[in-house]
Amino acid sequence: MRCELVAVGTELLLGQVADTNSVWLAEHLAASGIDCHFHTSVGDNVDRVASVLRIALERSDAVIVSGGLGPTQDDITRHAIAAVMDVPLERDEAVLERIRALFAERDREMVPSNARQADVPRGAVVIPQTRGTAPGLICRVGDKVLYAMPGVPAELKDMATRAVLPDLMARAGTRATIVSRVVRTWGLAESTLAERVAPRVDALEAAGNPTIAFLASGIEGIKVRITAKAPTHDEAQAMVDAEDAELRALLGSVVFGVDDDTMESAVGALLEDAGLTLGLAESMTGGLVASRLVNVEGSSGWFKGSVVAYDSQVKFDVLHVPEGPVVSEKAAAAMAEGAAKVLGADVGLSVTGVAGPAEQDGMPAGTVYFGLHLDGATDVRHHRLPGDRVRVRQFATISMLDLLRRRLLDRLGPTG
Amino acid sequence: MRCELVAVGTELLLGQVADTNSVWLAEHLAASGIDCHFHTSVGDNVDRVASVLRIALERSDAVIVSGGLGPTQDDITRHAIAAVMDVPLERDEAVLERIRALFAERDREMVPSNARQADVPRGAVVIPQTRGTAPGLICRVGDKVLYAMPGVPAELKDMATRAVLPDLMARAGTRATIVSRVVRTWGLAESTLAERVAPRVDALEAAGNPTIAFLASGIEGIKVRITAKAPTHDEAQAMVDAEDAELRALLGSVVFGVDDDTMESAVGALLEDAGLTLGLAESMTGGLVASRLVNVEGSSGWFKGSVVAYDSQVKFDVLHVPEGPVVSEKAAAAMAEGAAKVLGADVGLSVTGVAGPAEQDGMPAGTVYFGLHLDGATDVRHHRLPGDRVRVRQFATISMLDLLRRRLLDRLGPTG
Repeated sequence: MRCELVAVGTELLLGQVADTNSVWLAEHLAASGIDCHFHTSVGDNVDRVASVLRIALERSDAVIVSGGLGPTQDDITRHAIAAVMDVPLERDEAVLERIRALFAERDREMVPSNARQADVPRGAVVIPQTRGTAPGLICRVGDKVLYAMPGVPAELKDMATRAVLPDLMARAGTRATIVSRVVRTWGLAESTLAERVAPRVDALEAAGNPTIAFLASGIEGIKVRITAKAPTHDEAQAMVDAEDAELRALLGSVVFGVDDDTMESAVGALLEDAGLTLGLAESMTGGLVASRLVNVEGSSGWFKGSVVAYDSQVKFDVLHVPEGPVVSEKAAAAMAEGAAKVLGADVGLSVTGVAGPAEQDGMPAGTVYFGLHLDGATDVRHHRLPGDRVRVRQFATISMLDLLRRRLLDRLGPTG
Repeated sequence: MRCELVAVGTELLLGQVADTNSVWLAEHLAASGIDCHFHTSVGDNVDRVASVLRIALERSDAVIVSGGLGPTQDDITRHAIAAVMDVPLERDEAVLERIRALFAERDREMVPSNARQADVPRGAVVIPQTRGTAPGLICRVGDKVLYAMPGVPAELKDMATRAVLPDLMARAGTRATIVSRVVRTWGLAESTLAERVAPRVDALEAAGNPTIAFLASGIEGIKVRITAKAPTHDEAQAMVDAEDAELRALLGSVVFGVDDDTMESAVGALLEDAGLTLGLAESMTGGLVASRLVNVEGSSGWFKGSVVAYDSQVKFDVLHVPEGPVVSEKAAAAMAEGAAKVLGADVGLSVTGVAGPAEQDGMPAGTVYFGLHLDGATDVRHHRLPGDRVRVRQFATISMLDLLRRRLLDRLGPTG
């Protein structure tokens, strides 16, 4: 069963609103095991909407169209569907009655244009409205089916859950359940990761179930999605678990979490397990590392704070860094030790570097030193990071947290 | 000139990522006066991408395709374009050289699959890559044009601004010049803002040029876009300037900037003009305020740093806040004074509050106190902010910066 999505609304084409409905529907179609190969957005124009619906019905078994069912003259989805079905619009008295009742309930005046929402293409089945005034539609077009729902997200989700997805599932007649998991990695280029994982890609290719796919997510590392299909949820889950284990065997500590895990939540969990508290000294990242850590639920248990020493004098005065070049191994070490001491933390983590665009003290943009003070010792790492000022900061932030993560993993020993 | 958008990536069809690129591109096409009637998303499949490109080229003059230019076997946009152009892919040595250089710069190993990114459909013009390893492409297809850019947002925005939008504008050959400006506001609800601006909306409606439109931008305030069309750039610019002045007369200090100005850049400019330096004491925001200030170019001239005192003990030890309740007027004042003193700054700005979800010391989530120390006096403001933990932090950050902005404006006096 192939179902595609069409979103109607000129505001989408102007970039004024993001199409969150399609994201939600796509996620739910995928979870229901229904293939979706195309999403289209189109403006409030009858001919263009009709042409998009015709193209969609040509290449898919079902089409879900959202938006354009309101009461104004801009709302032309009903007309476009009627054109595609080659039938007239007819006023549905039951729908009209429900619209009147909804207005009465809310003590609002019903203006004549609201009656337009009771116009239904002949032969369409109505999905009764419960939240808004626009009903949904289920329309047979030859041996294909077209669903129409209002674009208001709450109304759409309600109708999709109540009527559209169950109808689609029934038509698909599939009992298969889909389970997917995203394995999150940091530290390898996409091409290197792909080569390491190649044996699994090859092994899975023949059967086609489970599948693995790479998702680049910009600065936040590369995600590997495992998707399995099976008659029951438990069986699909077991297939995902098994593939997850295979991937981890190939990737080791490159994997920092799954699904909604973040680098900062991974670090937080390790600190919490180890019973250690963390203090930061940030120069180049300017508080970015701290601001990510405090987003982790329960961070107040292990996060003490950060000295954002953007000015060199703050490094000398507050962190007791010896006077001298501040983008250096020595300064990074002193900052990490100073952070632990000043903030009363077990672990001191520091960063100093050149965000750019200009070089500093003869160091090029992207130069960065991380300091890590733990168990009485201080290590320093030196990196050269790519990108502009914003990207250098983001890279530095995740690299620095990853450094701590790997150190905490090492500390747990090989059995950790 | 009609240009439509095609986004390539199975992750889009699975609802795993939202297509922010199309929103950004749509906004920029609209501002450039180029019509865009369709957006399509399609998965990583050569035949389906090719079919979507053919449909798009049929009904539009130009097509911008994003994504699918990476180094893995999933990345098939190059192949689909070559199929549509009916030409072979050829390895471009100059592009390959640039990829090699980028890897060398970053001290990363280049694996053979990266060379795939140097494959270019015969006859295509390369848009040199500067941020990532994938180049962009400008491809003539009959009398139409097809642009391809990587899906990584930073790379796409860079290439769109540098090459694609200027090329489109040149091809459009329209002599009417469009100038637009986004006026940024903070502090009014959309409905209140709309009422204040209503006289201008009415005044402009008849002529239809210039136009004004509201763009909700979530947490960052409401934007008002002015767009003017005229035979020359100077004339369009003058119309925009005149409308900008009308809006400011109605909105006053609610306007904090235009276009790419941010609340932090507005604050930075005022500090720089006043010759004042700033130090922060952040509790609830956890470094978020500092991390935004350091993104302002030239911030090292006026930003000293921040003490992120997440743990109460850090407030007492580092900022010399008297022991007692830390979410209080007293603590906020002591933090602002402590920040100025410890960090050696002219202005001390502080925030302490309850991000949630749980209440703290009997204070509900969203409770926040800001302290501002300047010219020998310390003011405290108390707010109750809406939303979850993340939104409360974002609201607190922008509200706190706005407090400083208004104080610095007042300091300049009515003629400032």
